[in-house]
Amino acid sequence: MTGTEQTRAVVERYLETMTGRDWDAFSTVLAEDVVYELPQTNERITGRDKYLQFNREYPGDWVLTVTRLLVDGSAAAATMNFTVGDEEMVGLVYLQVSDGLVSRVTDFWPEPYEPPAGREHLVERVPSELDRFTG
Amino acid sequence: MTGTEQTRAVVERYLETMTGRDWDAFSTVLAEDVVYELPQTNERITGRDKYLQFNREYPGDWVLTVTRLLVDGSAAAATMNFTVGDEEMVGLVYLQVSDGLVSRVTDFWPEPYEPPAGREHLVERVPSELDRFTG
Repeated sequence: MTGTEQTRAVVERYLETMTGRDWDAFSTVLAEDVVYELPQTNERITGRDKYLQFNREYPGDWVLTVTRLLVDGSAAAATMNFTVGDEEMVGLVYLQVSDGLVSRVTDFWPEPYEPPAGREHLVERVPSELDRFTG
Repeated sequence: MTGTEQTRAVVERYLETMTGRDWDAFSTVLAEDVVYELPQTNERITGRDKYLQFNREYPGDWVLTVTRLLVDGSAAAATMNFTVGDEEMVGLVYLQVSDGLVSRVTDFWPEPYEPPAGREHLVERVPSELDRFTG
């Protein structure tokens, strides 16, 4: 079990090196058998080499801004605004740290949708202050 | 600033009373000026009475299972599998606690999508062990 403060340091380094596209430094916080999963597409990537390649090859001139980071024991949750040109997306990620290295990353990419009818009497339509979507 | 252990107790009660649809008990953990927001639809509900009504009126015979809970200071992040009949959805929620009550709830409902082309050489297609989607 990795303690909260060690987890925080590891995950901060993970996010900082990802934000800076410093893939060599990024690789040093990954467990050799790291699992990266995208539950929305049922995709899974296993192992540091493949996960690094996935990140290096990821297309687009994206810019990441971390908007939330929560750390609890060996687990962390982060949210980010992800901008590619004029398009903004929100990324939601859950991480596990084992032996001081990131061992599991679970990523979600929610998309804008039209609200269902029937609750107009309760809601206002205003953009979130923190989470930035276009589309 | 609410401490981590108080936040954990408040958020556990929030999740437990929501899971049990015990709306009277649920209301006791909500701040009077609680803000509930859905960034994907730009919807916002302000105030305990409206947020309670939103939950009481929410359609469908849903069943909730909490799959992750992280607490860090006055913030929490939870994930849940949400089943309505044969349909499974995943809910991702971020909460803030102030003065021992839930003061902000930010909810995301990611949906399944087809993976973009170009990374087949790195991925397997396997369902997430924890997060359950249909569709």
